Amino acid sequence: MDAIQTIMSRRSVRQFTDQPITPEQLQVILDAATSGPSCVYAQDWDFIVVRDRAMLNRMADGNGRPAEPLRSCNVGILICGNLERAFPPAQDYWIIDGAIAGQNLVLAAAAQGIGSVWLGTYPQMERVENQRALFGLPEHIVPHSLIALGYPAEEEPRAKKPLPDCIHYEHW
Amino acid sequence: MDAIQTIMSRRSVRQFTDQPITPEQLQVILDAATSGPSCVYAQDWDFIVVRDRAMLNRMADGNGRPAEPLRSCNVGILICGNLERAFPPAQDYWIIDGAIAGQNLVLAAAAQGIGSVWLGTYPQMERVENQRALFGLPEHIVPHSLIALGYPAEEEPRAKKPLPDCIHYEHW
Repeated sequence: MDAIQTIMSRRSVRQFTDQPITPEQLQVILDAATSGPSCVYAQDWDFIVVRDRAMLNRMADGNGRPAEPLRSCNVGILICGNLERAFPPAQDYWIIDGAIAGQNLVLAAAAQGIGSVWLGTYPQMERVENQRALFGLPEHIVPHSLIALGYPAEEEPRAKKPLPDCIHYEHW
Repeated sequence: MDAIQTIMSRRSVRQFTDQPITPEQLQVILDAATSGPSCVYAQDWDFIVVRDRAMLNRMADGNGRPAEPLRSCNVGILICGNLERAFPPAQDYWIIDGAIAGQNLVLAAAAQGIGSVWLGTYPQMERVENQRALFGLPEHIVPHSLIALGYPAEEEPRAKKPLPDCIHYEHW
């Protein structure tokens, strides 16, 4: 699928069918996630890929009401920052690097006809600690975001909001 | 250009030719930036698009040595967070939303044959304050990242680093 069309047409999907994502499709999605840039090429992320239904439900339990899509998704991915690999003078670039990886991930899904939704974890620290406890993560691994993936069951995309006045030329 | 190919093949470009980006290409790039998801659809970003050479040089002056590509780029874009639109219970989602917008932006450039490089600003607060002062930004507008755009003058892409052991299945 064309790149511009993929970027422009992607919408969040919150309800999924039972159709599985194939291992080959998943590999493309993971390759995309790890092919993005990171601060000083630190590759300061980790990904936990989950298909187990009970675990997906526990991930949803720990991530607030917006995380309900995990209960019908085919694959859930927890993106984490890895502070041992993060740029030492400014470790918080891990937040940006995780988001770049996540957007590559959802676009590579969309390009294959697979729906997705971002489920925010960081900076909501209760969610961060819930995911950390669930997976027994060491201190240097920080839960960033959950992504639910699967074939869309929703019939229509949501309405588009008008764009705020957010493009400025040459000066503020 | 194919979406997966665009994602996988994009590399940072740090030296640019004089060939201009057309207004139509730039519009596609900006449309991509603003079409990404944001926390609770807050659209909590602003973009300052700069072609003025003197201003691009001043942006480079304020953003450390890695920002040198601004001196040869055709268009520089300062991505900012807008805290007045950010999700009130967890405003720091602006950091993730700005990064999602930035990755859409550089991919839409790459899909059109246009090179780009991310030049980190936030969370390096000296750079943040330098860009804020340069553009006279109000307090609720936070510089996030600079993106330099233009046609690539570099002859070869940089070597790829091996991937760390960062993909985990079902558990940490």
